[in-house]
Amino acid sequence: MELPAALQRLSALLARFPGVGDRTALRLAFHVLADGRDNATALAQALHALHDGVRFCSRCHNLAAGELCAICADPRRDDGSICVVESVPDLLAIERSSTFRGRYHVLHGVLSPLRGVGPSELHLDSLVARVDVEQPAELILAVPVSVEGEATASYIQRLVRREGLSLTRIASGVPQGAEIEYLDAATIGRALLARMPL
Amino acid sequence: MELPAALQRLSALLARFPGVGDRTALRLAFHVLADGRDNATALAQALHALHDGVRFCSRCHNLAAGELCAICADPRRDDGSICVVESVPDLLAIERSSTFRGRYHVLHGVLSPLRGVGPSELHLDSLVARVDVEQPAELILAVPVSVEGEATASYIQRLVRREGLSLTRIASGVPQGAEIEYLDAATIGRALLARMPL
Repeated sequence: MELPAALQRLSALLARFPGVGDRTALRLAFHVLADGRDNATALAQALHALHDGVRFCSRCHNLAAGELCAICADPRRDDGSICVVESVPDLLAIERSSTFRGRYHVLHGVLSPLRGVGPSELHLDSLVARVDVEQPAELILAVPVSVEGEATASYIQRLVRREGLSLTRIASGVPQGAEIEYLDAATIGRALLARMPL
Repeated sequence: MELPAALQRLSALLARFPGVGDRTALRLAFHVLADGRDNATALAQALHALHDGVRFCSRCHNLAAGELCAICADPRRDDGSICVVESVPDLLAIERSSTFRGRYHVLHGVLSPLRGVGPSELHLDSLVARVDVEQPAELILAVPVSVEGEATASYIQRLVRREGLSLTRIASGVPQGAEIEYLDAATIGRALLARMPL
């Protein structure tokens, strides 16, 4: 049975969501159909309004209500340390940990030749400019521990090497509460290589 | 850090999707933000177009391109048997099994007092009318095997009991390939109670 074009089109667009395959996308599209026209219209309006309703910080590219984000506008944060992250959700996760009091720089992506993401797609120029102007003592590379994350970290390392700037990378190892038995070999290998004296 | 209202609004609406919790909804909203304005607009347009682009069969309430759906319009299908299902995806799943050549009747829901779904929300009047007019030999209740599905099946049973109409319910038991060790007690109980002679 051929599905209506309108249903197929919505389904194809929903399949762009991370973690949503073709079958789940179709199920979501059927849910929109069953959920009534008013809810579909509300969702469409929220999508239309999203990009106009969201601004980014001109300094660090975090979400912002005005010109600067709440973190860049906060005088109590430490100017001496900039934490480089892939995305705003990563920044929010680090903020929830309450272990960092410096500033951030959000790249909005990591280098990924396979997905066509090169250096010009990331906020790297503004990172280099900040390092030159703000002269932080430390740049913490908190991009993901993955092939793409490591490539991005290496690239940044070459870009911003400066006298007096300490470049660091977040630690990789056994996560809190994880069962070592079930961890992947790469994580166990990293945890052993980076072992610390007691 | 307070999230922009536009992001919170989209996230709240995405959390209406089945299987999408608050955290996943926020992740999807961030994905829409990162995926660019054009893709957000395309998704919004597809949502707007959905309800106008989808028609339902006037006879069985399946998806239809015209007045009748492809199954109701097909003269080779058996008029003697009507299979009652909760939803169009359930109908599609039965069609994929290639084991049923009769007609369908899509209720678009099951009785659920907790979610405010009563008999008037389902396509029950048209089912009763079809039983009276089309006089099928068999009505197969293929609604889900769940508390709500059983309540719906019982309700339909009382509605459509007719002389000469065979009312049946799809079998419930051990699914193909399942490990009995991991099945829930209710399924194992049903499979034992409904055991068949070899």
